[in-house]
Amino acid sequence: VILERAGAGGGTSAMSGGVLYLGGGTAIQRACGVEDSPEDMYRFLVAAVGPEPDRARIACYCDASVEHFDWLAACGVPFKPSLWPSPAWTPPTDDGLMWMGEDAYPFCDLARPAPRGHRPMAMGRSGWILMECLQRVVSEAGAQTEADVTVERLVTGDDGAVIGLVARRYGSELTIRARGGVVLASGGFVFNDHMLGEYAPVLLPHTKIGTDYDDGRAIRMAQAVGASTKRMDAGEGSINFSPSLMAAGIVVNAVGQRFVNEDVYPGRIGQIALYHQHARAYLVFDEEAYESVPDNLRHGRRPEWVCETVAELEHEMGLPERSLQTTIELYNHHAARGQDPLFRKATKWMRPLRSPFAAMDVRAKRMDGPPDPADRGTGFRVFTLGGLRTDLEGAVLNVDGDVIPGLFAAGRAASGVPGWGYISGTSLGDGTFFGRRAGAAAAAY
Amino acid sequence: VILERAGAGGGTSAMSGGVLYLGGGTAIQRACGVEDSPEDMYRFLVAAVGPEPDRARIACYCDASVEHFDWLAACGVPFKPSLWPSPAWTPPTDDGLMWMGEDAYPFCDLARPAPRGHRPMAMGRSGWILMECLQRVVSEAGAQTEADVTVERLVTGDDGAVIGLVARRYGSELTIRARGGVVLASGGFVFNDHMLGEYAPVLLPHTKIGTDYDDGRAIRMAQAVGASTKRMDAGEGSINFSPSLMAAGIVVNAVGQRFVNEDVYPGRIGQIALYHQHARAYLVFDEEAYESVPDNLRHGRRPEWVCETVAELEHEMGLPERSLQTTIELYNHHAARGQDPLFRKATKWMRPLRSPFAAMDVRAKRMDGPPDPADRGTGFRVFTLGGLRTDLEGAVLNVDGDVIPGLFAAGRAASGVPGWGYISGTSLGDGTFFGRRAGAAAAAY
Repeated sequence: VILERAGAGGGTSAMSGGVLYLGGGTAIQRACGVEDSPEDMYRFLVAAVGPEPDRARIACYCDASVEHFDWLAACGVPFKPSLWPSPAWTPPTDDGLMWMGEDAYPFCDLARPAPRGHRPMAMGRSGWILMECLQRVVSEAGAQTEADVTVERLVTGDDGAVIGLVARRYGSELTIRARGGVVLASGGFVFNDHMLGEYAPVLLPHTKIGTDYDDGRAIRMAQAVGASTKRMDAGEGSINFSPSLMAAGIVVNAVGQRFVNEDVYPGRIGQIALYHQHARAYLVFDEEAYESVPDNLRHGRRPEWVCETVAELEHEMGLPERSLQTTIELYNHHAARGQDPLFRKATKWMRPLRSPFAAMDVRAKRMDGPPDPADRGTGFRVFTLGGLRTDLEGAVLNVDGDVIPGLFAAGRAASGVPGWGYISGTSLGDGTFFGRRAGAAAAAY
Repeated sequence: VILERAGAGGGTSAMSGGVLYLGGGTAIQRACGVEDSPEDMYRFLVAAVGPEPDRARIACYCDASVEHFDWLAACGVPFKPSLWPSPAWTPPTDDGLMWMGEDAYPFCDLARPAPRGHRPMAMGRSGWILMECLQRVVSEAGAQTEADVTVERLVTGDDGAVIGLVARRYGSELTIRARGGVVLASGGFVFNDHMLGEYAPVLLPHTKIGTDYDDGRAIRMAQAVGASTKRMDAGEGSINFSPSLMAAGIVVNAVGQRFVNEDVYPGRIGQIALYHQHARAYLVFDEEAYESVPDNLRHGRRPEWVCETVAELEHEMGLPERSLQTTIELYNHHAARGQDPLFRKATKWMRPLRSPFAAMDVRAKRMDGPPDPADRGTGFRVFTLGGLRTDLEGAVLNVDGDVIPGLFAAGRAASGVPGWGYISGTSLGDGTFFGRRAGAAAAAY
């Protein structure tokens, strides 16, 4: 029995970009001529999602990633065997494979780079295709879905095991006895301001993405029966800068300093700016960089500032006098030799920036939709990564690390592969991967 | 009845510097000619301990801070009515009052600056005096102290209220019924690597300070009866740089960039370096700056590098070519006009740095004891700030925000005035302040 809180299934996953982080030699990787191994995938993820990544979980995820891809394909999820080669949030094509920063520093030094972002075939966002296919399979398997049901609380027996739950549908109370276990498969808690204030205050001032049902209800229900949580402070913040333009230009903070290699996965740039640079960032580039980015990769944005000299640009942006000039002089000095000894952006992107110059402010425009000059938000679109602590079968753990019998969790109700760091595709990837395992464990319970 | 885990009381508090963050016009402040108000103290703390500071808690703390000082003085805690005027971790004198960065940016713009670090009178660390006085008062009040008792778990009644506990002493089990409530008054969890990995992984690689009993036991016992936690990711990292020398020089990160106004409270510099600069920092200064710092404020450290030119220094330090040169050129350009438009260090510290130059690496030496050239740790001495969620009377709250009847907490078992940020003195300050309230509430329960 599936108790669906909304009028129909899909939730935030269906609204998302649809990327699944998979690898180790999937059929799509092989069709694109990409060599990969579970070991390289493991080395990348361990470096990308720390500090203190969940190594056992990541190993489990990488070792069976090819099998999981095959299962998704067997569920009818379509993947086009072609690679989008440039940095992007969502490619403007229906290519099935994309890079998630595996070829950028420091990851390129730690593991053989391979693109592992797998996209269900559609132009633009494709999460809806994934969820449509999975819901069809679920329905064909004979699962009974009850929509518009809000679960209120879990019911435990005398021994503390979860034996059922109390729910509500349009004013009526439902009491359901679980023959097997209960699997919590909700989203995170970004739409619960109280929980954000308690656990992830850095995210509070920003634009939340997801559905209203990402309110942490499943996490709180489980906590009420003794569940423990992990990485509740973690979150991702995406920004409306073109990844290709970032790589061709530079990204600086509120005092004009660079702080990251701009060719790394853009979700990582956003997260660093959000957590470590006071949620401030500017994208600075020259005309040649701008012209090098096709119109369909510019996110419909034009620069807020265009100037003949860096001194003028710096002044108009309100940056400290000589700060941006100093940064660009140093960048150009190194770029002339194709090197970035500060942040190790790849040589192919290193080129001295020349007049005329331009810049964008992360706060100026939101990620999607037509430009609105009146919209001056924070520029960060955020969601939570933390959640319930589970074992590799999805069983929810209490504060002593013991299993709470009968209770399982998957998706962003749980802390998973994206521990503190974030790579797009690890959420849908681990939600489906460990969701399958939780389902199997609950069925066997 | 006091159940003391160690052989005698005092714990980490007795080993600490002893600073209590108090203000609003205490007798010591008045004797030093310092004007202060609860409102200015509130504005400072709200800005210093965010994001999302606990405003109600801070207001309660500031409004009654003068009364709390008077209570401490009545307990016999001695405070000398004299002010140490320079940035310091622990002054080399027995002065009773010190600055905690109230006069530095951004705080000087937000609240009327007043020094609020109150130190029990001793040369060097004075936490032992505070604890000696408090233990004498407790003993005279007729409290029965049982030492060497490890509390194992809380006992709850059918209604979920805490009615007692199970403890152990040298192999024997003790079962104690609480007539009033149980007050958990332990330290934090920095000596529990598992909890650090789960909640505060950033702290894991560094030198822990406190006693072995700061292992989170009280937090875990309370969680086991449904308690919720707050700011479990937060921690402080102190560094062995002389605060006076930092203010006179510059602090840079692993790529030679400044990242903070070096005249702010040094605990804040350490925390920013730890959480936001990959736990890397260098202190760079010139001969004039070094000579300006008295020998007893140099922490027994000598520079690791001394060079005639910044180019040589940068090279010897292994920083990217031209990175430190660029930083110092920009700093000197602004310093020549007495300004720091990047980080707003006070004008009195801004002076162009001139040859010869020198630098220290945060990783080179530990905080105390004689110099040991073989010691190359991370350079950060850390402890945790997060803990149980409580109301203003010290009652422990469950995940719904409801009181767990009969259970109270104070000190670093609880999240308190130092929410995420940190100012020395807020731990001993809120431990004693809210400890008194928890005791009164438990007695009345």
